[in-house]
Amino acid sequence: MQKRRTDLAVEARDLWTEAAGEAAKLEGVKSWDALREGYPVTTVEILDENGAKTLEKPVGTYVTISLGGLRRREEDAFGRAARVIAKELGQLLPSEAGGPVLVAGLGNQAITPDAIGPLVVSHILATRHLVKQMPEQFGAFRPVAAIAAGVLGTTGVESGEIIKGVAEKIKPSCILVADALTARTADRICSTVQITNSGITPGSGVGNSRRELNAQSMGVPVIAIGVPTVVEAGTLAADLVSRAGMELPNEGAFAKQTGGLLVTPKDIDAQAAELSKVIGYGINLALQKGLALEDITMLLE
Amino acid sequence: MQKRRTDLAVEARDLWTEAAGEAAKLEGVKSWDALREGYPVTTVEILDENGAKTLEKPVGTYVTISLGGLRRREEDAFGRAARVIAKELGQLLPSEAGGPVLVAGLGNQAITPDAIGPLVVSHILATRHLVKQMPEQFGAFRPVAAIAAGVLGTTGVESGEIIKGVAEKIKPSCILVADALTARTADRICSTVQITNSGITPGSGVGNSRRELNAQSMGVPVIAIGVPTVVEAGTLAADLVSRAGMELPNEGAFAKQTGGLLVTPKDIDAQAAELSKVIGYGINLALQKGLALEDITMLLE
Amino acid sequence: MQKRRTDLAVEARDLWTEAAGEAAKLEGVKSWDALREGYPVTTVEILDENGAKTLEKPVGTYVTISLGGLRRREEDAFGRAARVIAKELGQLLPSEAGGPVLVAGLGNQAITPDAIGPLVVSHILATRHLVKQMPEQFGAFRPVAAIAAGVLGTTGVESGEIIKGVAEKIKPSCILVADALTARTADRICSTVQITNSGITPGSGVGNSRRELNAQSMGVPVIAIGVPTVVEAGTLAADLVSRAGMELPNEGAFAKQTGGLLVTPKDIDAQAAELSKVIGYGINLALQKGLALEDITMLLE
Amino acid sequence: MQKRRTDLAVEARDLWTEAAGEAAKLEGVKSWDALREGYPVTTVEILDENGAKTLEKPVGTYVTISLGGLRRREEDAFGRAARVIAKELGQLLPSEAGGPVLVAGLGNQAITPDAIGPLVVSHILATRHLVKQMPEQFGAFRPVAAIAAGVLGTTGVESGEIIKGVAEKIKPSCILVADALTARTADRICSTVQITNSGITPGSGVGNSRRELNAQSMGVPVIAIGVPTVVEAGTLAADLVSRAGMELPNEGAFAKQTGGLLVTPKDIDAQAAELSKVIGYGINLALQKGLALEDITMLLE
Repeated sequence: MQKRRTDLAVEARDLWTEAAGEAAKLEGVKSWDALREGYPVTTVEILDENGAKTLEKPVGTYVTISLGGLRRREEDAFGRAARVIAKELGQLLPSEAGGPVLVAGLGNQAITPDAIGPLVVSHILATRHLVKQMPEQFGAFRPVAAIAAGVLGTTGVESGEIIKGVAEKIKPSCILVADALTARTADRICSTVQITNSGITPGSGVGNSRRELNAQSMGVPVIAIGVPTVVEAGTLAADLVSRAGMELPNEGAFAKQTGGLLVTPKDIDAQAAELSKVIGYGINLALQKGLALEDITMLLE
Repeated sequence: MQKRRTDLAVEARDLWTEAAGEAAKLEGVKSWDALREGYPVTTVEILDENGAKTLEKPVGTYVTISLGGLRRREEDAFGRAARVIAKELGQLLPSEAGGPVLVAGLGNQAITPDAIGPLVVSHILATRHLVKQMPEQFGAFRPVAAIAAGVLGTTGVESGEIIKGVAEKIKPSCILVADALTARTADRICSTVQITNSGITPGSGVGNSRRELNAQSMGVPVIAIGVPTVVEAGTLAADLVSRAGMELPNEGAFAKQTGGLLVTPKDIDAQAAELSKVIGYGINLALQKGLALEDITMLLE
Repeated sequence: MQKRRTDLAVEARDLWTEAAGEAAKLEGVKSWDALREGYPVTTVEILDENGAKTLEKPVGTYVTISLGGLRRREEDAFGRAARVIAKELGQLLPSEAGGPVLVAGLGNQAITPDAIGPLVVSHILATRHLVKQMPEQFGAFRPVAAIAAGVLGTTGVESGEIIKGVAEKIKPSCILVADALTARTADRICSTVQITNSGITPGSGVGNSRRELNAQSMGVPVIAIGVPTVVEAGTLAADLVSRAGMELPNEGAFAKQTGGLLVTPKDIDAQAAELSKVIGYGINLALQKGLALEDITMLLE
Repeated sequence: MQKRRTDLAVEARDLWTEAAGEAAKLEGVKSWDALREGYPVTTVEILDENGAKTLEKPVGTYVTISLGGLRRREEDAFGRAARVIAKELGQLLPSEAGGPVLVAGLGNQAITPDAIGPLVVSHILATRHLVKQMPEQFGAFRPVAAIAAGVLGTTGVESGEIIKGVAEKIKPSCILVADALTARTADRICSTVQITNSGITPGSGVGNSRRELNAQSMGVPVIAIGVPTVVEAGTLAADLVSRAGMELPNEGAFAKQTGGLLVTPKDIDAQAAELSKVIGYGINLALQKGLALEDITMLLE
């Protein structure tokens, strides 16, 4: 069967349910829905190795926020989206004690659908140097460092090595990794944010060559925040065929003819820009408790 | 049946042949293949209204150059590609007599797969002012003007109106329009250049809202040069399904679920940049007979 | 004496006063100061040919708004600045009757200090097509078209010809031209907006090669709005020397050694972006009476 | 006296000579001129602490290449410039033994005259991962890693800390740092490349806040390669005044009125792009002995 790749735990769960039937019980996985600031939030908890194996994702909590309202330009959509990201992120973040937070962007700035990571970083309020140099004015801020880790093809260094190298210098209490993801279905593209405390899974991302980046490899908690910007063309075709109730051809039939092709929205440049900004603002709100959205705008732009 | 949209005459011909069978005779259409500078060139001539109706393209000559070798980085691939574009274009261009040539770019610079037009324009040697102001040094140059016509959504003016307004001022002998196109099959994306003397067909292009732009509406010959950068997601899925020998679902089944989604290569930014450059250089070679590639580089960069 | 070039009428007036002495009477010129939305506004009216000759600017009204507060990030600085621009511009705009307003950006997008014009245009709400196509939803909007006119070196066409060509197609009631200017003193750079109903003076702008663009050449009122982004290096040196009470060397001494060199703020990219945005929003507020700042953000971004 | 800041050892020497007189002997400094590939090359060797104190630069070799011919578009200017950079750099580089070479770009990509560092990095052939992963194809290449170190204001981390963090991971045999510099005289701007084995001096660069980055702080040889892109406005004015034979006003008189203002060429965007490319190619030629310019183009673009 055509393999349908997804970085979203919620889609992996849905795929399983499709195959196993609504009545089947997914062992080792718990999930629930909520509505926060007007946005639907689904939390999938992979509880044990059993669940991890079934969904092909590591044990951990996966929060999915559906940001469709942002594209429909609903009332205060940006502010509400930033706040719900901040709130969900806040629940996964370790306490303030310890070192700074290191925000790292993964992916390739030169490839729009892979640029979410570096774009998010461009909206992060870096405060680590200010807290140190001007404690009187900035003592109340949480120290934050923000780097874009580049991509192996242009740096010659694994992004994980760069992040680890910087982390060993600045001793963060926690690493927050932003990245572009792939989804399985067209309607998830650019409309969903996933936050997880399981870090980055090998082989995920748009660039597809990410290595493991998690608490074990980094020595401190790693929270990943991502947004699916593409569906692989073969995956999309397989999904459409299967929804039309048709039999799928044998595995890889579509993938072979569509290698290197991605499905993105026509206005991916604008959507990637907006999503990165809302994620960046959400991260800033989560990390700097005393700040409002306007303060962040004032400090950043 | 799922409508499979294509701006390429060669694909329209192939679609017809697929449906009608290899043996069937396509009335009012003539086509032939050649190899030029190592690149396959297919010319489709739509001879009359009969052929025009069948292929849903106006009467005219459509030259398709397959630039796969450019991506494979074959020996002197760029130079050969620029020269074959120049040669094919040269056969459709009217003679030098009369006014300047106006090169106009269609499409939206902010949307990468739609940016071919403005990108091509950025590689055009504008000489009209030099020929006028410094006839001693530049008298041997063909006068060329180059504008990006913007898009209706951001200018509030049809690109055709802008081009016509400028044309009425500078009285060109010929208008050359560069644009991004859509294809039907994945393997045409970013690997094909189409040159036609029939101008721009309404509804073509990536932005999909182009109006007619041809000799009749402009009053002078209009040559269009374009490169397919996308396949509509629904079209791609339909094409894959049909190639797999499966029955297609009813018309629009896929299109509805994939509206606004486009299939592009992952490195569309890099490919659009390279193709625009090779087309721009090809146009310069065709218009300025005395120049070599290196001269153009020297004058442009 | 070293010629000190300025596009600002207020600086031309000050230069005259410096030379002639505070007590001298500047014939044919009237000027007054005000404070609007917290920003100092100086209006210089050149009343007749006498004044025009003395200040080397055409007869007309020149409004200068000092936006220092914008850079100091004062409370609501952006909103107040957009509103004061809208108000001053509104007093120079002809009534709503007649055709659309054509907003045209002059200058070179690829040269940051010359990019004010095209950057402003990128923030203009183009409504002309909406008013025509969807009169029910957009009938209350003033029809606006917005184009970047490019520069002669890359288009081969005078920007004035392009604007006139488009104007003859869309028959505007008024043309609004945005441009980068040069100033004489360092403290005016990126801190001042000048609005004038005299259009564009030949030889003004950063690119220095602007032709006349005014009511006479265009056939409809032309309002120019500009911001000085540079001081020519020779002008700056002459200004510093003269302020230090030193004798200036003979004419052109400095200019010869500094040809092509410009003085700009280190963060010119960020400042040009912000000033263009505030001018664009100011223009939108002036043209679309019913809209608030937030509506413009929603519609534009 | 007005302090005239320069990062160029050759200018520091000239300043000293101007003040001390042609006949005076500059102790602890040796210098000589040559012509390489048609470009003038001046080498200043600061031999001891005596010379270091006088020129306010650390002990080391400073090679200055005058690239005026590049802007005059002389025959094969780009190729010759890349080769002379490669040759001079090659003489300061340690032998191939040991780990990879780490090329690091300093400065702010968002501020054009400060963007030389990150722009150079974008032209570096990163090979470290290829040598490791595909030793059969790439075994003959020298392993190279390339990173842009960002700026403190946006990362919250000293660029030196980032470079050191990465260096501790990849154990380079040598670090090559690219940066934008400030000059004292207008004619050095964008026309000179300085290569030195003394690393980065505290307070140098356009951003002005660089910390020390040298063999001592990094533990391996540090070669710095830079190009002056600006003169501080106060420095330029002082230089012009002094050349005009006038007496300079007291120290800081000009600097106070021109704080934050820089003098750059009008086409700094284009010049920074070209210089970064020629430096990048020069570095690649120096590091990958077997490659020609065309190979680099093929591999990079």
